[in-house]
Amino acid sequence: MEREELFKKISVENDKKMVLLVLDGLGGLPLNGRTELETARTPNLDLLAAESELGLSHPIAPGITPGSGPAHLSLFGYDPLQHEIGRGILEALGVGVEVSARSVAVRGNFATLENGLVSDRRAGRIATEKNREIISYLSGKIKKIEDVEVRLYSGEEHRFVLVLTGDGLDDRLTDADPEATGKPLLYAKAKNEPAAKTARVINLFIDRLTSELAGRPPANTCLLRGFAKYPAIPSMAERFKLRAAAIAVYPMYRGLAQLVGMEILETGRTIGDQVATLKKHYAEHDFFFLHVKKTDSYGEDGDFVHKVGVIEEFDRWLPEVLELTPDVLVVTGDHSTPARMQGHSWHPNPVLLKSPYQRYLPSGGSALDAIACGPPDGQGCGKAGAAAARAKFSEGACARGILGQMYAMDVLPLMMANALKFKKYGA
Amino acid sequence: MEREELFKKISVENDKKMVLLVLDGLGGLPLNGRTELETARTPNLDLLAAESELGLSHPIAPGITPGSGPAHLSLFGYDPLQHEIGRGILEALGVGVEVSARSVAVRGNFATLENGLVSDRRAGRIATEKNREIISYLSGKIKKIEDVEVRLYSGEEHRFVLVLTGDGLDDRLTDADPEATGKPLLYAKAKNEPAAKTARVINLFIDRLTSELAGRPPANTCLLRGFAKYPAIPSMAERFKLRAAAIAVYPMYRGLAQLVGMEILETGRTIGDQVATLKKHYAEHDFFFLHVKKTDSYGEDGDFVHKVGVIEEFDRWLPEVLELTPDVLVVTGDHSTPARMQGHSWHPNPVLLKSPYQRYLPSGGSALDAIACGPPDGQGCGKAGAAAARAKFSEGACARGILGQMYAMDVLPLMMANALKFKKYGA
Repeated sequence: MEREELFKKISVENDKKMVLLVLDGLGGLPLNGRTELETARTPNLDLLAAESELGLSHPIAPGITPGSGPAHLSLFGYDPLQHEIGRGILEALGVGVEVSARSVAVRGNFATLENGLVSDRRAGRIATEKNREIISYLSGKIKKIEDVEVRLYSGEEHRFVLVLTGDGLDDRLTDADPEATGKPLLYAKAKNEPAAKTARVINLFIDRLTSELAGRPPANTCLLRGFAKYPAIPSMAERFKLRAAAIAVYPMYRGLAQLVGMEILETGRTIGDQVATLKKHYAEHDFFFLHVKKTDSYGEDGDFVHKVGVIEEFDRWLPEVLELTPDVLVVTGDHSTPARMQGHSWHPNPVLLKSPYQRYLPSGGSALDAIACGPPDGQGCGKAGAAAARAKFSEGACARGILGQMYAMDVLPLMMANALKFKKYGA
Repeated sequence: MEREELFKKISVENDKKMVLLVLDGLGGLPLNGRTELETARTPNLDLLAAESELGLSHPIAPGITPGSGPAHLSLFGYDPLQHEIGRGILEALGVGVEVSARSVAVRGNFATLENGLVSDRRAGRIATEKNREIISYLSGKIKKIEDVEVRLYSGEEHRFVLVLTGDGLDDRLTDADPEATGKPLLYAKAKNEPAAKTARVINLFIDRLTSELAGRPPANTCLLRGFAKYPAIPSMAERFKLRAAAIAVYPMYRGLAQLVGMEILETGRTIGDQVATLKKHYAEHDFFFLHVKKTDSYGEDGDFVHKVGVIEEFDRWLPEVLELTPDVLVVTGDHSTPARMQGHSWHPNPVLLKSPYQRYLPSGGSALDAIACGPPDGQGCGKAGAAAARAKFSEGACARGILGQMYAMDVLPLMMANALKFKKYGA
């Protein structure tokens, strides 16, 4: 039996609540001996860590640095190598475009054509303002090609997203991009028979756009690549019998949550707004995914100090989440984004899981007794209070945690188990 | 190459002895800060733990709670998601029925039929005595249907097992069970052509039984479900070149051992009897599976104290096993059965492995030196003697163990390696 078929078979509905708090790019690398998380003053996370099971999770597999798409699929319990999300779809999700199972999404560049040759693949990086103007003009002119609906969305500078929606579309096309200047436009080719219609429509689109923009250099043609259908991923309702909801500020993460059928809750821009949204809708769902973006953004910028600041801000809001007393709570990242590396990395992420069925129960004094007698999440074998005082939510403590090293795609199954939402497998 | 094909290719015979001691449902959850295993006084296990490699094993995967069938297949080195054991077969094994590759086993309920409708799906939970009487009567009346041999076995109360043996039998049938009262009998339907014969025989059986029991309410008909063929699992001899033997008291575990071709050794009811059986047959096999059931039974009853007692009883017999000086010894559970949960759970199980090739050798001073320099199985970094004195076979110590967290199906391959029964893979 396949893993995901197994989940479908053993999942049951109940009224337990699960909350997954994701700090994007949480894991880090040390500067002066401490990672971003270890540097942050996080009294609430630390207290929680002393009462939780800790571990480290690999987003995909040891050594693999993931993009946001596969990293989140993992956290949602899906095998990220089994469900691929095409680049075009991710771009579309990133600009907040509605895409459906009948859509193909495409990344576009405005480019410059001179004497029949591409002279600039980015149309001199036109201003985003200019881009919006052109897209608005084109949207009025090109609404349909054959029976296929055409929608266009501005990105930054020369970038845009094209979404085709219609019957019988296919994404198995070669890129319509010469990949070098001084060459003529390259048209898309169908890799196989079912994609012939899509290739024809794409190439008609290139010609239409080029003729509409004739005499308007530098943006007078386009290059198209990353053709991608909306992936057919079974929803979390189908797979896990969950009424799942997402609280995310950035379009891409709302889009990723939508891919697995979560309801997207309207929210504001700050962590405080997001927590308020969680409280407001807490009765309506049994699984909440709350996504904090800025840890990753500052990591990407190489800004150690401000990444620390976002973690501290999150920590200040944590008590309001804890007041909801979710049955199962997880705090983790989707991948590491060490400020020192200014980008995503393969380092496993801290995972904290709190549940009434965790092996080392911290209720009352006994938890701390347990720590004193040796469970690995506590950092010492001294007195209870001392152990708690030393506890810290950190990469180091997680590396010694009782959850060990795990795959991120096992986090959601573990939450399901702890929420008693999985039946026994086999007799 | 498939995992199991690999094992077949690299397994070699030698005269090394491996002993797998399984305490059913061993893993637990704490009560007053300590699990059942941590509460038990186990001086012999603790001494052994100080000289062994420790780890935690997931029966199936993180978060998955297994039944006894898949949990034991894992411990025997088989992928439990690849080899499924149908419910009917497990029931048959549970009542100690002989089943073969030509058999289909079925779970039966005696039920009550009134005016053509099922009025009680359990025939008023007739006494087990009454059940035996009816089965004995029917066994004399229904011996064959077409060319298929029919055998019947009493279970508890209204339950029985039907075993059909013949050529061309198939288990792809819908259940013959209306699943509600007030409905007429439901006959089995073949899900595909090869199962047509079996469906016909099953439905003839229902009619024969119902006519034989006419006028004998409340048990005057039957419901049948969980049709299952004897699974075709390659034996441990084929797969691992082992002469394997099982020492188990309960029929289901003897049956599971038989599924993978172990020889079933006659034994008594107590752990002492089982250890005596091990000693008696020690020369004849190179792999022994000794199964202690009562840890699980008390766990299922929610009886923390008596589960502790069984672990302590096991501990008293351990020295007699150690006297045999097996080359590789493993002590573990098939799954956790925390008394607090009164049932199986997903929590990983303690694993203890002792072998001359374990990485941290405790022989003489060096073992203890090793502990003193910090391998994770020792609980302190003080003096050797102190470390050994504090060592404990427990979930907490196993969570810090050098074996880490592993899949249960990797335990047997690890035993094979430590017994030098695996050749190198590849050149």
